Amino acid sequence: MRSSQLFTRTSKEANKQETSRNAQLLSRAGYVSRLMAGVYQYLPLGLRTLNNIENIIRDEMNKIGGLEILMPTLHPRENWEKTGRWEKVDVLYTLSSDRTSQSAPHDLALAPTHEESVTPMIAGFVQSYRDLPIAAYQIQTKFRNEPRPKAGLMRGREFRMKDMYSFHVDQGDLDAFYERATQAYVNVYERCGLGNRTLITFASGGAFSKYSHEFQTISEYGEDVVYRLPGTKIAINKEVIDDKEALREIIPGYKDGDESKLEELKAIEVGNIFKLGTRFSEAFNAQFTDKDGTMKKMVMGCYGIGPSRLVGTIAECMSDDRGLVWPESVSPFKAGIINLKAGNEKTDKACEDMYAALQKSGADIFYDDRDESAGVKFADMDLLGFPWQIVAGPRGLEKGTVEVKNRASGEKQEMSIESAIAKLSGK
Amino acid sequence: MRSSQLFTRTSKEANKQETSRNAQLLSRAGYVSRLMAGVYQYLPLGLRTLNNIENIIRDEMNKIGGLEILMPTLHPRENWEKTGRWEKVDVLYTLSSDRTSQSAPHDLALAPTHEESVTPMIAGFVQSYRDLPIAAYQIQTKFRNEPRPKAGLMRGREFRMKDMYSFHVDQGDLDAFYERATQAYVNVYERCGLGNRTLITFASGGAFSKYSHEFQTISEYGEDVVYRLPGTKIAINKEVIDDKEALREIIPGYKDGDESKLEELKAIEVGNIFKLGTRFSEAFNAQFTDKDGTMKKMVMGCYGIGPSRLVGTIAECMSDDRGLVWPESVSPFKAGIINLKAGNEKTDKACEDMYAALQKSGADIFYDDRDESAGVKFADMDLLGFPWQIVAGPRGLEKGTVEVKNRASGEKQEMSIESAIAKLSGK
Repeated sequence: MRSSQLFTRTSKEANKQETSRNAQLLSRAGYVSRLMAGVYQYLPLGLRTLNNIENIIRDEMNKIGGLEILMPTLHPRENWEKTGRWEKVDVLYTLSSDRTSQSAPHDLALAPTHEESVTPMIAGFVQSYRDLPIAAYQIQTKFRNEPRPKAGLMRGREFRMKDMYSFHVDQGDLDAFYERATQAYVNVYERCGLGNRTLITFASGGAFSKYSHEFQTISEYGEDVVYRLPGTKIAINKEVIDDKEALREIIPGYKDGDESKLEELKAIEVGNIFKLGTRFSEAFNAQFTDKDGTMKKMVMGCYGIGPSRLVGTIAECMSDDRGLVWPESVSPFKAGIINLKAGNEKTDKACEDMYAALQKSGADIFYDDRDESAGVKFADMDLLGFPWQIVAGPRGLEKGTVEVKNRASGEKQEMSIESAIAKLSGK
Repeated sequence: MRSSQLFTRTSKEANKQETSRNAQLLSRAGYVSRLMAGVYQYLPLGLRTLNNIENIIRDEMNKIGGLEILMPTLHPRENWEKTGRWEKVDVLYTLSSDRTSQSAPHDLALAPTHEESVTPMIAGFVQSYRDLPIAAYQIQTKFRNEPRPKAGLMRGREFRMKDMYSFHVDQGDLDAFYERATQAYVNVYERCGLGNRTLITFASGGAFSKYSHEFQTISEYGEDVVYRLPGTKIAINKEVIDDKEALREIIPGYKDGDESKLEELKAIEVGNIFKLGTRFSEAFNAQFTDKDGTMKKMVMGCYGIGPSRLVGTIAECMSDDRGLVWPESVSPFKAGIINLKAGNEKTDKACEDMYAALQKSGADIFYDDRDESAGVKFADMDLLGFPWQIVAGPRGLEKGTVEVKNRASGEKQEMSIESAIAKLSGK
């Protein structure tokens, strides 16, 4: 993409309503634009980033046998009454349809989670133990009536979510799938560049399992606090810190009075997986005929991860004073070409040729073809945060060279045009 | 995909609540499942179909320079007050947030269209005539408080929509882009297999242009009536039929009393494009500095097409007594393999080998590996509607042959396994 094709522009100052680092950076760079508190528009660069993250998640869910579906936002009140969550979930957006007819429910919820639609749908297809296990997931927009949405893309009223639901004959089968899902989650954070700072955190488990698990990315901007077992990627959250029995179970060799062994860290919750047991299959009578001919309730698990929150998390964790620093896997473009003398026939041709050759190789390339000063272009390209920059100016081109800069390390290397193309070719 | 991986199943009877042909077929085949009137869940096969259609639309929008974005569902009331549509749009879903804070608007709309968010957003980036034209589009879920949503996927309360908005320096530039967008729409219907039955229909234009245009697919199940100029793909709708001046302008050689020349047809509206003029740029003061230094309002166009409605339209128009009949471009799978004797070592191996070879070639293949009767498998595969069927049984395999059937024409051909693979390889 050429910058002349892009309608967004960078700005030096962030919108004053933005108090979070992620929203400041992403809106200054033209990735997102705020419509109101907690509600953002994804602009071309932001949507490309979001899509890259969603595709990584999709790939990992497919690998463990998840089948992708798409469920609706509008849910009938009766489904939420059945689970007791119509009254209980205080962030539930509800509305009334004033055009009732016999066929249409009057009160509706905007779904913040989808047990209330996936459970009866799956129950409609399952008859026997042979039909299980099933894992169905979707990547879709969710809604929460957040009282104070001040954290940019971290805690929105409207946000993107991947939610998977699994259905099993018994607890043992759920446990085995839960392990595989845990590993799939670890893979997602690894592929998004957050692997080395994301902890598996033990949280309280509810009625049907001892623990649930959160994935927490260490960040000084985080709203959560977790306690890490030093030298590991294991942590516990506040709910578990006072539970001595749990500590003994989770921490090898734990003795009473060892809290001091745990490292307190600020973190961002980037995922949550949960064994639901039969809580929802009971509410919707989601049952199957087991091998022995008896009817049993399905045992369920759920697995959530927020792609839009990941955009914000990566923006906060992997940026510097000059702007965003995307890992290659999620960056909207692999490299940006800076033409130091737009309008000069020779530099224009060299840049156009590189742009064409790299695009042909399958690489997603951004080309700053504007007639702006070198200083403006350098600053903008740093703010945009693509992993590689190719700087082409008349002096280097005399010798047939360009400068290739790594955005994260700042390392610069002069090389021939051919070498630059070879280095940055391909997806 | 193997049928044993798929959790959906076909059914002989449609849900009694479904009165439309599209919803009956799609739910019997397990493509969609009804959550409530006008609100559907897309199951694995349905989502694949929807994605194929959305990707065709995306490709055509990109070709005419559209940049993809993603705008929110939750809109603040004030934006809709500015355009006068808070009160005026009777299908607008509205809700109140009971958790107001200073930063959050109290009353919200669920957007059925996005002029109210795209116009101020674009206005924030445009300064000069050099920044125009801009075309931004999204593919996203929309909401309409439909009083009687009885037409299955045709008229939902929640549905998928591609909406593009274009911004221009003047009417002439809008007119030129509008022509290109018209051709892009024609390409979409052509690629979706509806080209030969989709008409460009003149409709009333509102304050800023003489006509808008609807794309209407001829169908006996259609809710609209259009009047076709025989032998052409041009039609007019009810709004225009009594406007003699318009008829003279649209129909070459028209003389008063020639209505009789027009053919009355039932049709489904599958797209709508509209010249908005400055209606919305005035409401949001969306202006730019023109060449002569004066400030001018941007001239806008909008271009809508419903991918979920297209799923329903193709299901209605291209099906037969036995079920769905997808064109290759939108079908969830290119071909389905029927193993006539699952459990037989030789047929199992032949089917597995074909499945592997075709998948390796890049073709999306469905494999019915269930232990069911041939009759059940034939009926199910016809209902599912993939364009090609490969039938493998012990008798043919003795000779090294399989039967390849075209779902649309019913034509069957016996051929070697190698020929079948060669015929159906690739995307």
